[in-house]
Amino acid sequence: MDTSGAAVDYPATERTTPTRSRHRATYDRAAVHAILDEGYLCHLGFVRDGAPVVLPTLYARVGERLYLHGSTGSRPLLAAERGSGLPVCLTVTHVDGLLLARSAFHHSVNYRSVVVHGTARTVTDTADRLTALAALVDHVVPGRSADCRPPSDRELAATAVLELELSEVSAKVRAGGPNDDDADLTLPHWHGVLPVTTVHGPPEPAADAADAAPAPPYLRNYARPRAGDGVWDAETGNP
Amino acid sequence: MDTSGAAVDYPATERTTPTRSRHRATYDRAAVHAILDEGYLCHLGFVRDGAPVVLPTLYARVGERLYLHGSTGSRPLLAAERGSGLPVCLTVTHVDGLLLARSAFHHSVNYRSVVVHGTARTVTDTADRLTALAALVDHVVPGRSADCRPPSDRELAATAVLELELSEVSAKVRAGGPNDDDADLTLPHWHGVLPVTTVHGPPEPAADAADAAPAPPYLRNYARPRAGDGVWDAETGNP
Repeated sequence: MDTSGAAVDYPATERTTPTRSRHRATYDRAAVHAILDEGYLCHLGFVRDGAPVVLPTLYARVGERLYLHGSTGSRPLLAAERGSGLPVCLTVTHVDGLLLARSAFHHSVNYRSVVVHGTARTVTDTADRLTALAALVDHVVPGRSADCRPPSDRELAATAVLELELSEVSAKVRAGGPNDDDADLTLPHWHGVLPVTTVHGPPEPAADAADAAPAPPYLRNYARPRAGDGVWDAETGNP
Repeated sequence: MDTSGAAVDYPATERTTPTRSRHRATYDRAAVHAILDEGYLCHLGFVRDGAPVVLPTLYARVGERLYLHGSTGSRPLLAAERGSGLPVCLTVTHVDGLLLARSAFHHSVNYRSVVVHGTARTVTDTADRLTALAALVDHVVPGRSADCRPPSDRELAATAVLELELSEVSAKVRAGGPNDDDADLTLPHWHGVLPVTTVHGPPEPAADAADAAPAPPYLRNYARPRAGDGVWDAETGNP
């Protein structure tokens, strides 16, 4: 067993193998990391009283581990502290374009998504918790954790930190133009892509920043690490 | 009991009442509709073999009902056809800004999210299925369903359509600038908001559109119905 974390692919499991569009699935570690690093918002699913719950929350990636945080009073974080952790499914999705085909049926979306299955566990070591919280700030705004007041003991006590190993992981990617049936190729309907992009900035100082200093370089030059341009195969979506 | 669907608020239930930040929750029907109508991507959570699964998918809203679709071979759609439907949690999130406070602890995100709990059921009536599929196309690109080939019988047979009633629903909104502790107000760190927006377009004709017609008006003038600007209370986030 490779424990170095350097294996190229995550192993496919029954639940990370899609029942359809298998050609869009990838287990490539670099591709998964790139999708995770471009985003910061995930949708975290867990089971409460037998029913599914999906909540939006921030995450950070550090190597083969994701960190989440929240109030110690929040339901999933309380649940993770009990017993052997909280089974979760964590999903990150980037929409890259709306696909308009000549037929309604072949309308689709270009996207890149990562689905992580696993068990979220509470991080208890104080140094690890501080590292995770700095990573959460820096994953959203790289460089920011060094330019703000670090957590106090009281704030640390009020914050729960969860970790989730990247072990059962898959990505799914759809790229390129619309597909149409041969019989539809002569139909007159416009077909192509409406690109979708997420734009950050420009920074807006708070209203009480009367003596407004210019935004620091990490904000003026803010850009998410955009993965995939020209890297994904337009036909399969795979890297 | 009001069955007109015209009641102003969705009734709060135990699972739509947050354990914290209750002031950010709203059950206002118009606010919920506005958040749902601005988006088209949801994260759908369900339970499989006792474990949570969260998948990204498209949705459309028609009145007090959401529609989802997919291949008849996909796992959640198969599950919904069995027994009495599929218990789901459907979540839609818009990120509006990254909040930089003087303290790491008060870093946050401006967002608007809707969480729907309920049971997804398969739509079997053919006319209803056609209506739902047209709504899905038009929810993503308003006006498009009239400008493409409608589904054939074979395509209809390959497509499963789910409906989910809007009955147990809540929205959560965070708006405005960062909050800082009084003791931190003299710290020198830049504080404010990095706005986040989603941009659509301009339309890109497919590579095989040699005789490229200009994009139709519904694409040239494409804009999501943006809800909330100047409407949400900056302090509470509530409409």
